[in-house]
Amino acid sequence: MKIQISVCQMNVSHDKKINLAKSKDFITNAAAAGSQIAVLPEMFNCPYESSFFEKFAEEFPGPTTDFISSLAKDLSIYIIGGSIPEKENGKIYNTSYTFNPEGLLIGKHRKIHLFDVDISGGIKFKESDTLSHGDKVTVFETKYCKIGVAICYDMRFGELIRKMTLLGAKIIAIPAAFNMTTGPAHWHLLARTRALDNQVYFIAASPARNEKDIYISYGHSMVVDPWGKIIAEKDEKEGLLCCEIDLAYIEQIRNQLPLLKHRRDEIYKPENP
Amino acid sequence: MKIQISVCQMNVSHDKKINLAKSKDFITNAAAAGSQIAVLPEMFNCPYESSFFEKFAEEFPGPTTDFISSLAKDLSIYIIGGSIPEKENGKIYNTSYTFNPEGLLIGKHRKIHLFDVDISGGIKFKESDTLSHGDKVTVFETKYCKIGVAICYDMRFGELIRKMTLLGAKIIAIPAAFNMTTGPAHWHLLARTRALDNQVYFIAASPARNEKDIYISYGHSMVVDPWGKIIAEKDEKEGLLCCEIDLAYIEQIRNQLPLLKHRRDEIYKPENP
Repeated sequence: MKIQISVCQMNVSHDKKINLAKSKDFITNAAAAGSQIAVLPEMFNCPYESSFFEKFAEEFPGPTTDFISSLAKDLSIYIIGGSIPEKENGKIYNTSYTFNPEGLLIGKHRKIHLFDVDISGGIKFKESDTLSHGDKVTVFETKYCKIGVAICYDMRFGELIRKMTLLGAKIIAIPAAFNMTTGPAHWHLLARTRALDNQVYFIAASPARNEKDIYISYGHSMVVDPWGKIIAEKDEKEGLLCCEIDLAYIEQIRNQLPLLKHRRDEIYKPENP
Repeated sequence: MKIQISVCQMNVSHDKKINLAKSKDFITNAAAAGSQIAVLPEMFNCPYESSFFEKFAEEFPGPTTDFISSLAKDLSIYIIGGSIPEKENGKIYNTSYTFNPEGLLIGKHRKIHLFDVDISGGIKFKESDTLSHGDKVTVFETKYCKIGVAICYDMRFGELIRKMTLLGAKIIAIPAAFNMTTGPAHWHLLARTRALDNQVYFIAASPARNEKDIYISYGHSMVVDPWGKIIAEKDEKEGLLCCEIDLAYIEQIRNQLPLLKHRRDEIYKPENP
């Protein structure tokens, strides 16, 4: 089965209303182009800076999730809603909500691995100063196949992506905002290997690059096929990335190179020396 | 601590004696260049074709392992002895032996994942027709650090490389023989991501390419640093690849980007939904 995916590589401003209006434009264009699934980037309604997370945070349901839910229903499209700061019981999470074409919430992922890094001569960021981490792996049914969602730094942990695959995900979507240190060094590499190792379609959705931001996103949203080949990629600029994927190709690759069948789980366990 | 590694990208002929003599030349040159560790490729004493495995197979100890052991002692060098067909109790394994500078066996790895693939328009191979698989993860002490060894197709399984890392390996060496289908598509990608994900030095050692072979090896032996950067790479031709690595850099990278510390093991377990 062939379906079309759109990745919304949008600029994110300091004004939430502008961000929502922009996401509406992008998703409207995605639907008009014939896409069945639209993917927004990480923190699409809020600048990716620690000082903004609390100010922009919403409980669920809230204005942003209501907005995305309505949009999904009006346009009859699946929306993997990037991520937004979510508030609950005094804690803030980096959370992704997915709505189906009826406007119903079908997936919710709280970023599991928080981005606390300090790279010499490069990026320094400490999400755990302001954010709390999620504890659940996120895979849900759609009318096409199971889809898994995780957020940005989560994709560095092969164990998580593998578990999503073993739970049946055939498409794995990662709203993300790599930066100008980790982007050039690792973005393509990780997206390609996760797709290849797990023989899934891997969608990496970034905001557009804005050189004036404090945290500068790398851009280069992309879709990678189960052979590890990039089949669609944006540059760093704002724009919609549309791409057709063929779910039957997953089974072809899994038959030809039966990686998942060849796994030897008992050997990987810590108790086996 | 800085040490020098040599990867012996040698041609493998149909004559075992020629192969052993060639490996001696390569390792002698590695020692003369000042290397503390020399790495041979997969099936360095035997053509990589199923019909040869039984004919070339040896029990341990045997002529090939005795030869490599003596060489290690004479040259006072660690030798990660690629792999050879090993015979035991009527079974044949694809086995790697590592000897220390005293000529003692310190590591033995039997290939865990057998290469049974049938890629449309590309390579077809079925190791399990002639070979049996190993069941053990291989990490051993050296005077520099712990080293892990696995063989070729084993490197496609991130779980195995992760386990070697958690067992303390700082250098992971993979005698391998990717081919003209999987080499161009996946060789660099996998070597770089395994190094990056696990923040280790990753050594991928291939035979040289010989267009006349039935199974044509890809070549491109390489050494990748813990940031996922290729720091030394051969082309497809026969030759020695020498490269200095800095073990202190591993800790630098692990401090700056604490991937191993950020793992959330309890979430990856199958029983956690």
